[in-house]
Amino acid sequence: GESITISDYILKRLEQLDVTSIFGLPGDFNMRMDFIEDHPTIKWIGNCNELNASYAADGYARVKERSIGVVVTTFGVGELSAINGIAGAFSEMVPVLHIVGVPSTTQLKSKPMLHHTLGNGRFDAYTKAAEQVTIAQAAIMTPRQAGPEIDRILTECITHARPVYLTLPMDLVAAKIPAKRLKVALPRTPPANNPDVENYVLDEIVKLVDDAKQDVVILVDACAIRHDVRQEVSDLLTKTQFPVYASPMGKTAVSEEHERYGGIYVGSITQPSIKEKVEGAKLILSIGALKSDFNTGMFTYHIPTARTVELHSDQTLIRHGHFPGIGMKLLLPKLTERLSKYKQGALKIPVLRFKLDVPKEGDYKISHAYFWPRLGKFFRKQDVIVAETGTSNFGVLDVPMPDKSIFVSQILFGSIGWATASTLGAALAARDRGLGRTILFTGDGSMQLTVQEISTMIHYKLKPIIFVLNNKGYNIERHLHGLDRKYNDIVDWKWTSLLTTLGDTDGKLSKSYTVRSKAELDKLLDDDEFASAQKIQLVEVLMDKYDTPRALQAAADLTAKMAAKSVG
Amino acid sequence: GESITISDYILKRLEQLDVTSIFGLPGDFNMRMDFIEDHPTIKWIGNCNELNASYAADGYARVKERSIGVVVTTFGVGELSAINGIAGAFSEMVPVLHIVGVPSTTQLKSKPMLHHTLGNGRFDAYTKAAEQVTIAQAAIMTPRQAGPEIDRILTECITHARPVYLTLPMDLVAAKIPAKRLKVALPRTPPANNPDVENYVLDEIVKLVDDAKQDVVILVDACAIRHDVRQEVSDLLTKTQFPVYASPMGKTAVSEEHERYGGIYVGSITQPSIKEKVEGAKLILSIGALKSDFNTGMFTYHIPTARTVELHSDQTLIRHGHFPGIGMKLLLPKLTERLSKYKQGALKIPVLRFKLDVPKEGDYKISHAYFWPRLGKFFRKQDVIVAETGTSNFGVLDVPMPDKSIFVSQILFGSIGWATASTLGAALAARDRGLGRTILFTGDGSMQLTVQEISTMIHYKLKPIIFVLNNKGYNIERHLHGLDRKYNDIVDWKWTSLLTTLGDTDGKLSKSYTVRSKAELDKLLDDDEFASAQKIQLVEVLMDKYDTPRALQAAADLTAKMAAKSVG
Ligand SMILES: Cc1ncc(C[n+]2csc(CCOP(=O)(O)OP(=O)(O)O)c2C)c(N)n1
Ligand SMILES: Cc1ncc(C[n+]2csc(CCOP(=O)(O)OP(=O)(O)O)c2C)c(N)n1
Ligand SMILES: [Mg+2]
Ligand SMILES: [Mg+2]
Repeated sequence: GESITISDYILKRLEQLDVTSIFGLPGDFNMRMDFIEDHPTIKWIGNCNELNASYAADGYARVKERSIGVVVTTFGVGELSAINGIAGAFSEMVPVLHIVGVPSTTQLKSKPMLHHTLGNGRFDAYTKAAEQVTIAQAAIMTPRQAGPEIDRILTECITHARPVYLTLPMDLVAAKIPAKRLKVALPRTPPANNPDVENYVLDEIVKLVDDAKQDVVILVDACAIRHDVRQEVSDLLTKTQFPVYASPMGKTAVSEEHERYGGIYVGSITQPSIKEKVEGAKLILSIGALKSDFNTGMFTYHIPTARTVELHSDQTLIRHGHFPGIGMKLLLPKLTERLSKYKQGALKIPVLRFKLDVPKEGDYKISHAYFWPRLGKFFRKQDVIVAETGTSNFGVLDVPMPDKSIFVSQILFGSIGWATASTLGAALAARDRGLGRTILFTGDGSMQLTVQEISTMIHYKLKPIIFVLNNKGYNIERHLHGLDRKYNDIVDWKWTSLLTTLGDTDGKLSKSYTVRSKAELDKLLDDDEFASAQKIQLVEVLMDKYDTPRALQAAADLTAKMAAKSVG
Repeated sequence: GESITISDYILKRLEQLDVTSIFGLPGDFNMRMDFIEDHPTIKWIGNCNELNASYAADGYARVKERSIGVVVTTFGVGELSAINGIAGAFSEMVPVLHIVGVPSTTQLKSKPMLHHTLGNGRFDAYTKAAEQVTIAQAAIMTPRQAGPEIDRILTECITHARPVYLTLPMDLVAAKIPAKRLKVALPRTPPANNPDVENYVLDEIVKLVDDAKQDVVILVDACAIRHDVRQEVSDLLTKTQFPVYASPMGKTAVSEEHERYGGIYVGSITQPSIKEKVEGAKLILSIGALKSDFNTGMFTYHIPTARTVELHSDQTLIRHGHFPGIGMKLLLPKLTERLSKYKQGALKIPVLRFKLDVPKEGDYKISHAYFWPRLGKFFRKQDVIVAETGTSNFGVLDVPMPDKSIFVSQILFGSIGWATASTLGAALAARDRGLGRTILFTGDGSMQLTVQEISTMIHYKLKPIIFVLNNKGYNIERHLHGLDRKYNDIVDWKWTSLLTTLGDTDGKLSKSYTVRSKAELDKLLDDDEFASAQKIQLVEVLMDKYDTPRALQAAADLTAKMAAKSVG
């Protein structure tokens, strides 16, 4: 039959998965990037460093949906530099393929003291580290294995939405293998639910809804996005009209303009009017819950298990009962059908529109209380909004986002610097999908970790709007500990020179601004040219060193309480 | 007896080890930086990101000598970001302590879904990754363990010159423990050699020197520096006057102005006149050999084992015989005594002075052939010279360095970006030790990985001279594969704006230059103000895209041959 090089086999699989960008850096052990560079539809995106590359692949996968992120690094030095980004993808359930170029199969066996090694012949050390943060690994050592192994880990990657790790020795990059397997696309659909158990589960849920007299609230969370049930959830809403709320990590899984959408639920940190609605419901139908500290207001859900049904990708929980193997992707359409009869009743439950007014404040300062609602007015349909851990991630929560916009953040893993580099991938995916603007909110502290990746954005003519909240340091950390400590200060940069320094040498491709007052902010946001995002733009937003969003203050207070308790 | 907090216990131990700078970033789980900030002699150096912090700790340890580097990061996100720097310290044998702030002991046991976790309750994943790249780990879980465990890993760190890993839960940071152990300093001296074996070894070596009729050459390598035998080697030279050569990783272990010093030996890549001297000797006494690919000219030593004696930190090799447990630190002084009788004979063996003349070239371009010897004239006694993987690392090899200068590079691990961040630590250590200027040579490509750390240098008023070799991309990679491929190009930055953008906002603390021609380079190097390094300075050196140093070209040719052979 037909044969194909291992490189091209991988690229074909990636093509089938709708991948158009591969991130990474070259290295002596992955030198055959030529395959990627020469590919007609897949583009090589050269990053400034490997951590940034892995963040970018993560951002790409989040926005591309039903595709995956891919990052290519070199043995040891490259892959270890990327490992934190891969761990983030694991934690947050983002499908990423990490391809590592390694020495030749002969060298892998004879283990000479090559550069990039630990110098002690332990050639498996890096793979062992990778095992901690990926769900599947493949070490290609013969052409024979290649096809099946690549397919195996890619299948794990797309079905579990988690990163996988592939090592490709230099001498096998161009080795030929049969192309036949490529005719069959990789399976995407989860395994079928056991019909008896599924029926039982459906009956039980319907019974609970009945008992609740339709006083049911749907709560959408992270895994609804990660495990690709947005469409199924949307159908459920349309056909049942149950009120719907989202967790921080579920934000924009359901349109925030939907008339049955009531806003964000985060345990004790929830806005009181919303909190009452969610916690007061007789039954909570939770879809894709991910109950991490910040996603649940520091574990302060006031919803008894006895009033909860939880749908997950691989199991269903009904009150105290567990139904392993009953996954939501296939369950949801059936549930929708069974619950559609409650529509009229459900419609009687009122839902307060999720909105946020811009407050009137006497002074000129750009406070968080002013900034976030004001930005809410700036957002448009189909915007991709990326927010960094810090004040940004908390501030943006209360802001309603337009229909079809996409909100991306890293609330569970919370590695700062992620947002900037992730924006590169997000913007490329947004361009692919014909979405709108990519808008980044980051802090002055976080931006410093991964700032160089702006350069890659400029190079590939991406046009994100980058808001850097300049509050002279690690505001979120100040509120947790060491309010006036020097270790929470950072070096102030000339933020508005970044774009011209890092690639837009003649200043034609970019524009930078500093806004110091509400008036300046308003003026900029109202400027059509600015809003149209024809160039890459950076806005330095001067804020008070101590000012912090409502939700962050509340979370910090809860964290302090938790910490005090555990210190004892 | 007296008691002390665990934090202060650690700081006291570090004080005893002469540590004055601790690198890192704050995080929610290592919030008690207050201890460090308030310490009278140890300074908290806040970095821009954790990888850079680990590189800086590595650079600090290399220059500080007999001290260690310390980096503090937060659970998961911080520590994984740093892991590549720690792996580099492992590979290159640099003593670094990595302290990770982790959740409270209660949380470590109950494993809630905290931010920075993998979301699946595997709280040991990060430690397992760390085990791959550190020689000892300690997880403090009770105050009782703390003292002994901290001492154990610090002892491993200083005796083996390798990184160690310590996790400190939030709730134990301020827990009290007995201070008594602190009265005994940590042991530094290696275990004693078995006297019978040692005597036998000495006899054997003397016999070989006799047989060689004093035609002996000493070859100093990396581990002579890492395992702290510079003084012992210097005594050996003084008392025996044997000719001495160095490997790339051993460069400056012996003064390059020593009258018996003949230059750098790198197998086939060696300058012919030197090669002949080394390979022609009847006996090679190798001290601290580390035979990695780039350190040996791609494994092209032409020295038969039968003519070699190798002294290592933990064993001695005499021709084909191994003598485990016979370490060089204690053996060397005895060997020196036994060999001093050969001094008169040894002096008869001529050594060519290691020098490099500035060539006359007709054109204006700054070629590698011109640049490196010209820089040789610029170096001064006690300069600390840091070179990055790439053309810099190869170019600088042929340049003789003045007496008491220190050369630092990462020839085995070879992670680019290391040099820039490492320079921060090197410069701090140089300031501590009252050494001269810190001079960095890096490539435009490498600089992009870790550029933000320049900001930290500015903040702490360090004044390195930074040479950025701008050759429009990854020159070294071009010569290995893909000469004209786009994946070897990078985005050109406005290099001379970096210092003002990244912290020297009003331009008073720094100066930047571009040199385009030999004349411009000469003029700058001859400028006393520039040479006196009163400010941080960055010099963009414009070079031809393809021009490459002699040694790199040779190494690339050998690598290509090796690769071709292994592809088959
Ligand atoms: C990689 C990594 N290092 C350290 C931390 C700990 N940390 C969390 S938030 C933060 C400060 C963020 O500062 P900034 O971006 O300025 O945000 P803001 O001031 O708006 O809160 C730090 C250091 C982290 N989460 N990730
Ligand atoms: C972390 C890491 N990523 C990738 C590599 C592979 N690599 C080795 S050298 C090099 C290029 C260096 O380019 P530059 O700094 O411009 O040096 P020059 O052009 O002077 O050779 C690359 C990408 C590496 N060694 N380390
Ligand atoms: Mg800030
Ligand atoms: Mg270069």
